[in-house]
Amino acid sequence: MYPISFGSDNHGGVHPAIMDAIIRANEGFCPAYGDDPLTQEALARLQDEFGGGCDAWFAITGTGANVIALQSFISSWHAVMCPANAHINVDECGAVQKFTQARLQAIDTPDGKLTPDLIAPRLINNRDQHHSQTKVISISQSTEYGSLYTPQEISALADFAHSHDMYLHIDGARLANAAAALNTSLAAISKEAGADIVSFGGAKNGMLFGEAIISFRPELTSHLRFYRKQATQLFSKMRFIGAQFIAYLEDELWRTNALHANRMCQMLGEKLAAIDKVQITMPPAVNALFCILPQETTPVLMEKYHFYMWNEATNEVRLMCGCDTQEEHIQAFIADIRDT
Amino acid sequence: MYPISFGSDNHGGVHPAIMDAIIRANEGFCPAYGDDPLTQEALARLQDEFGGGCDAWFAITGTGANVIALQSFISSWHAVMCPANAHINVDECGAVQKFTQARLQAIDTPDGKLTPDLIAPRLINNRDQHHSQTKVISISQSTEYGSLYTPQEISALADFAHSHDMYLHIDGARLANAAAALNTSLAAISKEAGADIVSFGGAKNGMLFGEAIISFRPELTSHLRFYRKQATQLFSKMRFIGAQFIAYLEDELWRTNALHANRMCQMLGEKLAAIDKVQITMPPAVNALFCILPQETTPVLMEKYHFYMWNEATNEVRLMCGCDTQEEHIQAFIADIRDT
Amino acid sequence: MYPISFGSDNHGGVHPAIMDAIIRANEGFCPAYGDDPLTQEALARLQDEFGGGCDAWFAITGTGANVIALQSFISSWHAVMCPANAHINVDECGAVQKFTQARLQAIDTPDGKLTPDLIAPRLINNRDQHHSQTKVISISQSTEYGSLYTPQEISALADFAHSHDMYLHIDGARLANAAAALNTSLAAISKEAGADIVSFGGAKNGMLFGEAIISFRPELTSHLRFYRKQATQLFSKMRFIGAQFIAYLEDELWRTNALHANRMCQMLGEKLAAIDKVQITMPPAVNALFCILPQETTPVLMEKYHFYMWNEATNEVRLMCGCDTQEEHIQAFIADIRDT
Amino acid sequence: MYPISFGSDNHGGVHPAIMDAIIRANEGFCPAYGDDPLTQEALARLQDEFGGGCDAWFAITGTGANVIALQSFISSWHAVMCPANAHINVDECGAVQKFTQARLQAIDTPDGKLTPDLIAPRLINNRDQHHSQTKVISISQSTEYGSLYTPQEISALADFAHSHDMYLHIDGARLANAAAALNTSLAAISKEAGADIVSFGGAKNGMLFGEAIISFRPELTSHLRFYRKQATQLFSKMRFIGAQFIAYLEDELWRTNALHANRMCQMLGEKLAAIDKVQITMPPAVNALFCILPQETTPVLMEKYHFYMWNEATNEVRLMCGCDTQEEHIQAFIADIRDT
Repeated sequence: MYPISFGSDNHGGVHPAIMDAIIRANEGFCPAYGDDPLTQEALARLQDEFGGGCDAWFAITGTGANVIALQSFISSWHAVMCPANAHINVDECGAVQKFTQARLQAIDTPDGKLTPDLIAPRLINNRDQHHSQTKVISISQSTEYGSLYTPQEISALADFAHSHDMYLHIDGARLANAAAALNTSLAAISKEAGADIVSFGGAKNGMLFGEAIISFRPELTSHLRFYRKQATQLFSKMRFIGAQFIAYLEDELWRTNALHANRMCQMLGEKLAAIDKVQITMPPAVNALFCILPQETTPVLMEKYHFYMWNEATNEVRLMCGCDTQEEHIQAFIADIRDT
Repeated sequence: MYPISFGSDNHGGVHPAIMDAIIRANEGFCPAYGDDPLTQEALARLQDEFGGGCDAWFAITGTGANVIALQSFISSWHAVMCPANAHINVDECGAVQKFTQARLQAIDTPDGKLTPDLIAPRLINNRDQHHSQTKVISISQSTEYGSLYTPQEISALADFAHSHDMYLHIDGARLANAAAALNTSLAAISKEAGADIVSFGGAKNGMLFGEAIISFRPELTSHLRFYRKQATQLFSKMRFIGAQFIAYLEDELWRTNALHANRMCQMLGEKLAAIDKVQITMPPAVNALFCILPQETTPVLMEKYHFYMWNEATNEVRLMCGCDTQEEHIQAFIADIRDT
Repeated sequence: MYPISFGSDNHGGVHPAIMDAIIRANEGFCPAYGDDPLTQEALARLQDEFGGGCDAWFAITGTGANVIALQSFISSWHAVMCPANAHINVDECGAVQKFTQARLQAIDTPDGKLTPDLIAPRLINNRDQHHSQTKVISISQSTEYGSLYTPQEISALADFAHSHDMYLHIDGARLANAAAALNTSLAAISKEAGADIVSFGGAKNGMLFGEAIISFRPELTSHLRFYRKQATQLFSKMRFIGAQFIAYLEDELWRTNALHANRMCQMLGEKLAAIDKVQITMPPAVNALFCILPQETTPVLMEKYHFYMWNEATNEVRLMCGCDTQEEHIQAFIADIRDT
Repeated sequence: MYPISFGSDNHGGVHPAIMDAIIRANEGFCPAYGDDPLTQEALARLQDEFGGGCDAWFAITGTGANVIALQSFISSWHAVMCPANAHINVDECGAVQKFTQARLQAIDTPDGKLTPDLIAPRLINNRDQHHSQTKVISISQSTEYGSLYTPQEISALADFAHSHDMYLHIDGARLANAAAALNTSLAAISKEAGADIVSFGGAKNGMLFGEAIISFRPELTSHLRFYRKQATQLFSKMRFIGAQFIAYLEDELWRTNALHANRMCQMLGEKLAAIDKVQITMPPAVNALFCILPQETTPVLMEKYHFYMWNEATNEVRLMCGCDTQEEHIQAFIADIRDT
């Protein structure tokens, strides 16, 4: 066990306000599967937060939210286009293919971000029976490589998608970090930017677990709840997800937590930039930072801190901060790098 | 909202000892996805509890545990045989078919229980390329209709399965209630009875969530963890499942809770039996009771209590007790039936 | 090899007129995958034959036609209801589940025929997220047990389906035999009876291979061709399917062949009925006959003739005639039964 | 309709010797689904032709053969690695994903050919539960871009695969053209080169239809026949596939046909090379040739000849010859290019 982790933003614990909400929800009998007042209230608040005119459901895990959201817009003869390093492409053990039987079209990107220019030449929606028809563009906000789409960039992708009879999906495992970094509302980088369906994750930003799926095309996703059950993502004691989300939305706790994580990563970046032997390859736009460490340094640091090798060929590592990261963690880490 | 529910054993809250364990686990950084000491300890204890020589994994939901366990033994050209009223057949929105692409062979049963005699004439494992080959017999212990297999009955099914090149799966969403009612260990109605894979549920007996999958054929299920991820059932902050299970196993809390639920249901049954206008159709073997109420009584009672209509044609209802059920709930319910 | 077979109507060869059509089609270059004049002409004729206002596609095998037709109306959270002895339920190795990931609801029937009365109590389309929603009723005309739906019986099923937001699919591997027996057009037992999608098989009635799928809901099945390709049923040298169907429709060759097969089976039935030791269990409505033979007779006959045991428990066998069956085959078989 | 086609090698008809074999097979009754002497003989001959020690099955279409062969070696948590322009990746409407639910890892290649050097950095078989594990390397011989693997190159891929606990699959829709071009046996570029499973196509080289799947790991593929049925690829009147293959193998008709097609393409290449305004981008290794035509030439030629645009951006077209291509077709085409 490592006393300090830069391994992932899900290595931290549960924020005290979230834990309190869980404890308070533990009172009396309650219908299961979402027919309870806490869930209903949480969903209503979420819909408000995302600009209204939308439907919302809870899922349990981020992978679950992704497969359900994608499935609700595609059939097996469709393709989903995503960046090559997308979570759905490389980190979910093929869960999307398992569930949807559809094709993933993975596109190489310089920084983890898709653009209409990258998409256009690879697009297949020609109605030719030999080809899977591209139906969804899926992006992560923020991305797996720690980069960030501006609202304008999302709009450009949404417009491109819609003008080609396609939909835009946003994997929002770190949507909070993105909105915090961009200083926008959640709606500004989802509904207002033209996204069709988005997930809003909690587990990487202080919740115990829980994902919200928000559809801005409610007329097309009325059957989503059946896919949720098929995906084994229908939680029985749903009030405990509802309670967490109410606390998470209250006074924008999500933003407070995300701002903290982003700020810690900013600080980490500044301190690393001042160390000659460290080469920052991706400065922190949100709460992830990528850098190349001296080859001999990495294994020594890994004995004491938890973090991941990103690219063994170049010795590039990923360092993540979360809402539990403290200045003293950073100071200790920096000191140890300097000493190694 | 209903102050009192006989609707399901997942309408209750989280047992205080479980909640304490969750709170205590919320300390410091921790690797995600199971690489943490609480998860490792919980899994080791579970393996002991189930007689050793087995592998164990955590899943999140009961449906999740079922699809993973079944998938680990079958390919798409196999069939799974189950009672017609099995949870996997009627209550999971086809999640097993979605995940495994395999055939479910549903067999009508008088009491929710399969027997070799019911199975034998329907069995198809003739190696003929036109037929899905039956590979797994799946039972629930206790069953959806509140009945119970004796260890000998499970052994007979396991022997039948193994002598026909098949496996026995037990959906143990209420395995605790069964072991409590039979006054046996968990191993006695799983490993020792010859089961090949079993789930052990927590959410219906005092946990917030969490299912354990225990394989007694570890040499055949080494790939199960990949299916868990594909099933979107890999929980990130796994320590909170581990912590719950440690508390659940400690001093056999699972048994204490289950015994209470079973006893409450026994009491409910005795009191209902004394009411002329109530006809008990399935006396409580564990914590579920089925009875026929006068047609005019049901809607009146449903305004005040939560419970489910089981068979509209006959006005048969299901009444479940859980570890939150109190004597006063039963007394109030009985009084209201008498008054209606 | 058996000189005479009552095993199946696909044990015969290719009708000379069909073979001639194949030979004539073998001329020059031709676009593949259906963009050829023979395919286009055949499809147009088929649409006429089925009453117009429909779309038609060619598939290769009957199982292929079934999975494509069913898939075009369902998603994975739907269920297809069918008789327990339906080809899709027992003879296709789970191809429907493999392809669609959906649930098959198999209903026991006395004679292989579904009725609204059998369906109604098993119907699940309650919009409850826990249950696969029944979306298609699938019947075979004629059935696996050699029985026949009247046009009125099909209409009743179609009306029932449509009034419950469902569709009616007809597996027409032997639709020709049914129309011949009923002395109706093909349209009368499909479009005019309210069916939504139907297959029209050729291989069991004199073609080398080839199935037509006809959709009477073209507005709902425009994506069917993608599913055909995914089902590996898109034939490359499609002109040879087109050519066969043109010959099959010409002067109603399908009816001539089917009438012959039906008549042969009728004759077989009459002669068997005159033999004391033979008990006819299902007299021939089309070209199949079921009867119980003396236990010692079956193995002796099976050395000389090909036919299938239908029910080992009762020694019931199935005898099929096809368009290749001749009177002398029947006379020889009857003589041998008498002698055994 | 175009009198002359360079569109595809499946635009031609059926070779007379194949058609004769079909006609001769049309005699008497015959068990269906492969239990007939022609099928048995054809399979035995194929096994010999491929070096023995293998199992063989017939499928109907090339896409069918691919999904069955791949499925027989993988589960849904596996990945199949293939060139980005592989038929399974771009021309089968996602049939592999539909059937197997597994991941395709598409690798960009300069010439349609995979190499260990291209594979190694993309390989994922680390046993980490988050990642689909690469289990099969799939190549086409000859490739979609008309290139050819030497036996040594195939051996290198097979060795790489086996040393990483993987298998090598060869899509042999044009295996005949490859063996003809390399002047080797079929075994030399499959079994002897270390391939684990291979398809051997007929429809692009003079057969009406039919594919053989040959497994060099019979101990691992005994369940393949169940997948064939699930893939809707079990042909009923199988004798007509058997008869075609017997004729196809007789006196190496496959080689005669392939040599002719290859030679025609060679001739076409030589004549095109002599035309200044034509730029050959991929000279013919087998029976396909890629070249850039003047932008104004293509539409004029396409009015008279059938051929495909390969790359609209560069005006690169694909020209294929088949066993029906005649010198006069080439002369006419060349004359028309010169005149345009």
